[in-house]
Amino acid sequence: MSALPPPLDAFAAIVGPRHALSDDHDMAPYLEERRGLFRHRARLVLRPGSTDEVAAIVKLAATTGTPLIPQGGNTGLVGGQVPTADDEAVIVALSRLNTIRALDAEANHAIVEAGVTLGALQEAAAGIDRLYPVSLASEGSCQIGGTIATNAGGTGVLAYGNTRQMVLGLEVVLADGRVWNGLRTLHKDNTGYDLKQAFIGSEGTLGIITAAAVRLLPRPRGRAVALAGLPSPAAALALLGIARTIGAGHLTAFELMPRIALDLVLRHMPGTRDPLDAAHPWYVLAEVTSSQSHDAANDVLQTILADGLEAGHLRDAVLADNLAQAEGLWRLRDSISEVQGREGGSIKHDVAVPIAAVPELIERGSAAVAAALPGVRPVPFGHLGDGNLHFNFTQPVEMDRGAFLDRWDEVNDIVHPIVLDLGGTISAEHGIGQLKRDLLARVRSEEEMDLQRALKHALDPQGILNPGKVV
Amino acid sequence: MSALPPPLDAFAAIVGPRHALSDDHDMAPYLEERRGLFRHRARLVLRPGSTDEVAAIVKLAATTGTPLIPQGGNTGLVGGQVPTADDEAVIVALSRLNTIRALDAEANHAIVEAGVTLGALQEAAAGIDRLYPVSLASEGSCQIGGTIATNAGGTGVLAYGNTRQMVLGLEVVLADGRVWNGLRTLHKDNTGYDLKQAFIGSEGTLGIITAAAVRLLPRPRGRAVALAGLPSPAAALALLGIARTIGAGHLTAFELMPRIALDLVLRHMPGTRDPLDAAHPWYVLAEVTSSQSHDAANDVLQTILADGLEAGHLRDAVLADNLAQAEGLWRLRDSISEVQGREGGSIKHDVAVPIAAVPELIERGSAAVAAALPGVRPVPFGHLGDGNLHFNFTQPVEMDRGAFLDRWDEVNDIVHPIVLDLGGTISAEHGIGQLKRDLLARVRSEEEMDLQRALKHALDPQGILNPGKVV
Repeated sequence: MSALPPPLDAFAAIVGPRHALSDDHDMAPYLEERRGLFRHRARLVLRPGSTDEVAAIVKLAATTGTPLIPQGGNTGLVGGQVPTADDEAVIVALSRLNTIRALDAEANHAIVEAGVTLGALQEAAAGIDRLYPVSLASEGSCQIGGTIATNAGGTGVLAYGNTRQMVLGLEVVLADGRVWNGLRTLHKDNTGYDLKQAFIGSEGTLGIITAAAVRLLPRPRGRAVALAGLPSPAAALALLGIARTIGAGHLTAFELMPRIALDLVLRHMPGTRDPLDAAHPWYVLAEVTSSQSHDAANDVLQTILADGLEAGHLRDAVLADNLAQAEGLWRLRDSISEVQGREGGSIKHDVAVPIAAVPELIERGSAAVAAALPGVRPVPFGHLGDGNLHFNFTQPVEMDRGAFLDRWDEVNDIVHPIVLDLGGTISAEHGIGQLKRDLLARVRSEEEMDLQRALKHALDPQGILNPGKVV
Repeated sequence: MSALPPPLDAFAAIVGPRHALSDDHDMAPYLEERRGLFRHRARLVLRPGSTDEVAAIVKLAATTGTPLIPQGGNTGLVGGQVPTADDEAVIVALSRLNTIRALDAEANHAIVEAGVTLGALQEAAAGIDRLYPVSLASEGSCQIGGTIATNAGGTGVLAYGNTRQMVLGLEVVLADGRVWNGLRTLHKDNTGYDLKQAFIGSEGTLGIITAAAVRLLPRPRGRAVALAGLPSPAAALALLGIARTIGAGHLTAFELMPRIALDLVLRHMPGTRDPLDAAHPWYVLAEVTSSQSHDAANDVLQTILADGLEAGHLRDAVLADNLAQAEGLWRLRDSISEVQGREGGSIKHDVAVPIAAVPELIERGSAAVAAALPGVRPVPFGHLGDGNLHFNFTQPVEMDRGAFLDRWDEVNDIVHPIVLDLGGTISAEHGIGQLKRDLLARVRSEEEMDLQRALKHALDPQGILNPGKVV
């Protein structure tokens, strides 16, 4: 502590010496995200234990002009939660704000602090027979504050919408260090501008979310999960049409993945096995839930698969018999990101296009990148029901990882114009962070960039909140 | 035209003489809302025929410092769409922007101009076998632009959310006259701040919405409607608990009304009749839809009613046998606002409280107002499933209408503290407009008012868009 120069000593004094990390070794887990794409320094990591401590930190930052980087579970994929090349920032890690302040089964809401993990909220909701439907591969470690600050998507969007749809109210530390208590739980409230909307999805650049009131839903009584093998993305699209008609609001996931994704999972994840007898070029993981019973969900999913088989859209399918089998099928899907890392470098795109354009995107994008980078392995997978594809490219087998990753921008420059040509977006759910900041101005109009800057300037006039991110 | 002084002549030239109204008689329908609560003047009414004309109007207003009032179907209930006592404004009526630009059944969206009526959009969606679920008593004349600018609620919120949940993208004329084209149709897009959220619910004070991309949903295959007679609001709340458990996401309406509301409808609306044999103190109109069939919806609603009867929560109920009967039951509910006007003056409150607190609100509020105004007739009705009550008071039978309405603020001052004490809001769905502008600062914190003003200043620095409304 005594070694810290001002104003760092004053920041440290707010949280106490145990929770102010300045040693390189202690700071390391906060400086780097898991793919190691951004390697920069920070002056300090603070772990405040209360909203008041966060407010005191921001107040001091405002008076000293110190840049702050809010950080949740550090699972973001665009570098929004880690330092930029400007090494002057202080990281504010919110994991100690991990109290569930209220859980109300009758009124169907929860009030949780920013550092509560998504998994902990899901479990708490289940404990009172309710559902918090946001579901991500990183749900064990990502935190509610981060999921709201990034408007997290995930696998449940098809039925339940993005995180934005689940937020009823927020508590936010503003850029001047004041606390806005907007922790409302009413389902209808048109009393002035809906200010929480500005903070949702702002990636910590407009305020620091310290707590949230979120909606809970009735917990489904039954869930059915199946994995189907298909000849092509076009066949998956046809199956989706059937699933939406039959499943209506009960179709809770419709995930597409290519054979290579399954191959990588089977190679790198212990205890996984191919649930179908033969290999298929493409797979769909589909989930249906029911407010009545497991059998009701199963009936609906079976009808979808039978109709799909009869129409020739799918070649084989397995329906989970029990919870363990359902989890096993989901594990194949949820492991894809992780196993890609074990297979070398990956250049990633988190894009969305109108649903009908997904097959064309896969075909044109894969061909164009393969022409520039022979031997590259396209691994396009994701949320077909939302038109949202994680259009990732794994490096050629023999290539140097670094040499491959050096071509990140070049590959982006091949894929993004195709996405835009198809009416799509270059960031469907991961956000902008620092990774896509330069891209933003290239895909948005001058009017829109002016609006983005006007909003930033209105809520953070000094630019101390997560500078170098988003705008 | 030639009689108009500058800059009015230049405004008129943008839309042409036929669509620039300056004569008192021509302007009258635009100056006053249907309850006659606000009687003020404007300098001109403009009826632009395109987004470009709206942009030209705003650009001229920005250079001349002319206040503009955007107006849709003129059905707003808080005076947001009509002039204030400052008579200097020009009204921009958007009804000629009434083209449905796109309807896409496969991608489940529509792109509509601001002046398309809600009813016309509902019909267009039905025409391609889709549902636009926002539903209001004024849907025949209210316009999409207005419903978005006010984040309209209505009877479908319980199952489908507010209007905000249905908006995918917007086209907005900004305060400097530039057009922001944010007409996106993607269901997932985290590319920078979600700017459309700022304009939704801003009541025309931050920009003028000229078109919107909205989500469409699968059209239900069946719908069941019932009217139940109950002893008390508490019994209605207990029935709601049953309905939510059995109906899950299929419970699409749960409307509460007192006997006096039905009495007024039967008295003033030709062709209505009491569908139950005996009179009951309270009624619930419940609707259940099904993605499968009418019979499926009927089964669910019948189970709800049977369980409610067995538990002693309801005394009698009628289930509509056919579409005409269903419409007849809905007409009883939808006519309440209108018949109140025929019964003399009404002092209104559009409030929401946590659902469990609705019975206490009705009891405390009715008693407190009756103590101050003997003979007053409380008519609390509305969306019990959202905790949203139109807590209206009809004048005593013999009292002078004007004398009664003069006590509006006094009655508000009795009801609103009770609402706030119960954790509620003074504007659940109608917004702030000019009616509740002074109240806003009394129910919101200093931090929140500063945020509201910062947003207004960032997007309309000159204050030309709907001044005197909201902030």
